[in-house]
Amino acid sequence: MPPEKNVASFPGLLLKKGKIKEQFYGVIKELILSGQLQAGRKLPSSRTFSEMMSISRNSVLSGLERLTDEGYLVAKRGSGTYVAAVVPDDVIGIKPAAPDKQTGGETHSPDVNPQTQVMKQLWQETLPHSGQNLTFNIGVGCSDLFPHELWGRLLGRTWRQFRHQDGRLNEAMGYRPLRRAISDYVRTTRGLHCTEEQILIVSGTQQAMNLAAQVLLQKGDEVWLDEPGYDGALGVFTAMGAKIRPVIGDQHGMDIAYGIRHWPLAKLIFTSPSHQFPLGGTLSLSRRMALLDWAAENDAWIFEDDYNSEFRYTAQPIQALQGLDRHQRVIYAGTFSKMMFPGFHLGFLVVPENLAEHFKIAKYYADTRTSYLEQTILATFIAEEHYARHVRRVRKACHERQRVMTEAIQRYLPEIVGVEPSDSGIHLVCWLSEDIEESTMIEHCRKAGLGAQPLSRYCQTRPEKQAILFGFAAHSPEDIVAGIRKLAQQMAKE
Amino acid sequence: MPPEKNVASFPGLLLKKGKIKEQFYGVIKELILSGQLQAGRKLPSSRTFSEMMSISRNSVLSGLERLTDEGYLVAKRGSGTYVAAVVPDDVIGIKPAAPDKQTGGETHSPDVNPQTQVMKQLWQETLPHSGQNLTFNIGVGCSDLFPHELWGRLLGRTWRQFRHQDGRLNEAMGYRPLRRAISDYVRTTRGLHCTEEQILIVSGTQQAMNLAAQVLLQKGDEVWLDEPGYDGALGVFTAMGAKIRPVIGDQHGMDIAYGIRHWPLAKLIFTSPSHQFPLGGTLSLSRRMALLDWAAENDAWIFEDDYNSEFRYTAQPIQALQGLDRHQRVIYAGTFSKMMFPGFHLGFLVVPENLAEHFKIAKYYADTRTSYLEQTILATFIAEEHYARHVRRVRKACHERQRVMTEAIQRYLPEIVGVEPSDSGIHLVCWLSEDIEESTMIEHCRKAGLGAQPLSRYCQTRPEKQAILFGFAAHSPEDIVAGIRKLAQQMAKE
Repeated sequence: MPPEKNVASFPGLLLKKGKIKEQFYGVIKELILSGQLQAGRKLPSSRTFSEMMSISRNSVLSGLERLTDEGYLVAKRGSGTYVAAVVPDDVIGIKPAAPDKQTGGETHSPDVNPQTQVMKQLWQETLPHSGQNLTFNIGVGCSDLFPHELWGRLLGRTWRQFRHQDGRLNEAMGYRPLRRAISDYVRTTRGLHCTEEQILIVSGTQQAMNLAAQVLLQKGDEVWLDEPGYDGALGVFTAMGAKIRPVIGDQHGMDIAYGIRHWPLAKLIFTSPSHQFPLGGTLSLSRRMALLDWAAENDAWIFEDDYNSEFRYTAQPIQALQGLDRHQRVIYAGTFSKMMFPGFHLGFLVVPENLAEHFKIAKYYADTRTSYLEQTILATFIAEEHYARHVRRVRKACHERQRVMTEAIQRYLPEIVGVEPSDSGIHLVCWLSEDIEESTMIEHCRKAGLGAQPLSRYCQTRPEKQAILFGFAAHSPEDIVAGIRKLAQQMAKE
Repeated sequence: MPPEKNVASFPGLLLKKGKIKEQFYGVIKELILSGQLQAGRKLPSSRTFSEMMSISRNSVLSGLERLTDEGYLVAKRGSGTYVAAVVPDDVIGIKPAAPDKQTGGETHSPDVNPQTQVMKQLWQETLPHSGQNLTFNIGVGCSDLFPHELWGRLLGRTWRQFRHQDGRLNEAMGYRPLRRAISDYVRTTRGLHCTEEQILIVSGTQQAMNLAAQVLLQKGDEVWLDEPGYDGALGVFTAMGAKIRPVIGDQHGMDIAYGIRHWPLAKLIFTSPSHQFPLGGTLSLSRRMALLDWAAENDAWIFEDDYNSEFRYTAQPIQALQGLDRHQRVIYAGTFSKMMFPGFHLGFLVVPENLAEHFKIAKYYADTRTSYLEQTILATFIAEEHYARHVRRVRKACHERQRVMTEAIQRYLPEIVGVEPSDSGIHLVCWLSEDIEESTMIEHCRKAGLGAQPLSRYCQTRPEKQAILFGFAAHSPEDIVAGIRKLAQQMAKE
């Protein structure tokens, strides 16, 4: 088979204007990673590439050189360029990616969008781990500290004053007094630059991501996700047919340079800079600036999931990406579910001014608008400063609960070899001894009634080390110690 | 240019297995309607079509003959087949269809999904008409009759009993006691066949349509919509890239035979059989059976929007399509917004058993789950039979309000030449005299503070006659008469 045969399927991918060099690089890498260009396969000559794709030979040579440097290709003197037998370590082991694959139809569900099978697979891979309402489940805030009676009084008052004819309840962007309260709050506490016209009330972060995907992305666009990262984001972007690009991180958050080097064509960066989920790194200022500069130059969008920004205990918070951005590339998402209680589904987006109408329209056609009642109560709750008081109280309690859990783990669970309090967040990452398997540990947890989560649940690539995650925010110090001891006893039994 | 040139772009469309004859017919018609095959253009010979597309000549001849019969093509003896200069009346005037078009990027909103521009256009064409909270706006039920105090008491009770740890609040399908209450209710009142396992709680019909589109459709699939029809549906299916196929109707609802004749390849039928929106026809039993049979044979899905089924005054209701279906082809959607009050965003889907998991997953990745509070109160409201009592009361009041409005219009507004009470629904269709333009009439309404809607807002094709729609349900008989008189006075002024 002549090598030119390979080329036939390339040109369709070279649709965007500009940046030919990077696109060529990206296309070839994509074909290698997806297995369409198999290990050992000989590539066409640079001249052939250049002619068939109508691009300059320089672009081809530069791309091939880079891929060779990075270990994807091997150049054999006098013979040509071949796909490497082993692709670089840090990308190997990517699960057979959900997006581009169509699984065979099942007999139960004939004739549905093939993407639904992909989603089902994703759901099955992640959801069975979620032990609902179990002790130490993650993603749950201090629901026991929620001012239940105060909220009940506001509920009663709001309902008595409620007029069905209030036109402010009909706005697709959300109830204006709430948008104003949120806008004031995030400007003060998170350093955002925005007005209430940029605030869109949504039913939570999951919907926020959906709207952003709908407005900003087309099928096949590349999206960076934290690796490990949030499975809800993986679900949204997979459902819309994006190509998921896992980007690793460290204690300074997402490794922006890694992302730029590996996935330079990305259209959207999904990141949680205040607290990288789930490992907890805070994106450093220099990385923030690098990301913003790169996004502006490359017309990429940044989705800033400001997850956990209010659960910060020690180090000073860093200003949100949205506030640092000078090029209108950031879509900022905040949520109230963690700070209030699970079941309270309300969040918000802060969008660039010139996108506000697009987001409003997407929201309108998605579900018209978010339910009025919680919007109106929350507006009062924030405006009357109950919210700020609640945040202070929760922060203090959470810090203490984190300390108590850390100490209990260190004392009772020798199988956990690494755990330390984090600057922020509502769960602890507990690194396991090499003597125990993650799955065994999770099994012990389930038997002890604990909803801990395995780190692997959040990984697209094979993680280097094994860990489990314990949520600590929702329990009193006594219950935390009791839970950890129960697990220790359970493990001693077997 | 040789005629074969035309053919190059066809084969890609012939992807589905089976029904080659109908597909050929559909593809050619599509190219004519979209303007890709222009009036007067000569078609390739049947032999050429047959060879280029690798289909039998019989399929080609049969398709060409049918298109000629229907007036899309003209056969000239001894010369060949041409695209007709004027395409058939009932499809002419389709607005430059939103779906397939990419409008040029605007300077404000660079680099977004091109589909968002299409949505913006759609929004701008329909939304400016919606006079929010004006008297006689449509789609609003008897919000003045809502048992405000009773609901407030249930709200207080529910909140006092509310436990944040209640696992039933975490189910993506919705709060189980509510699903049970709804399942019992629709089985009794609407003749549905279902269990609570098939009920999915959503935030309203808009979200219901979105989930169905996501699970069932792929970009480019054909969807029948009522013509005129519901603009919210048009928005959802356009946003997901479906091809909209307008199907006309009459007093017996959607003209199923017309739909089958014109758009035999449709993947989804969106219809409101209890009360065709906005004209009010009720889908006859024979048409229901014809639609169900056809859908089963052709693997098409039916989305039954049971809009207004509870606002029925005179004739007996007909059993829902879902209850008549024996082939699991119907997705049934109900809403509580109209019966309760605007701002109360809660609805439900009844889905075929074998699709329940797909819908659950779509809902989970769309917005995790619907907010808990209204679900829990509504469950009690239905279970304690407050809901059934409220429906009876509303139905009686609405019937009276419809009568009062009909008489007031007949008495005070000679410009309206046709108005008669309908068996069901919460608005009146008022046909205009030929002496006045719809837009003029709407302008008068706006000046008089009335939120009437022009029929053309709901039309994909040019309507034969002009009409405006008045919502009557939200106002007392006195206010109805006062509103109509105010409009009459306003018109007399100019």
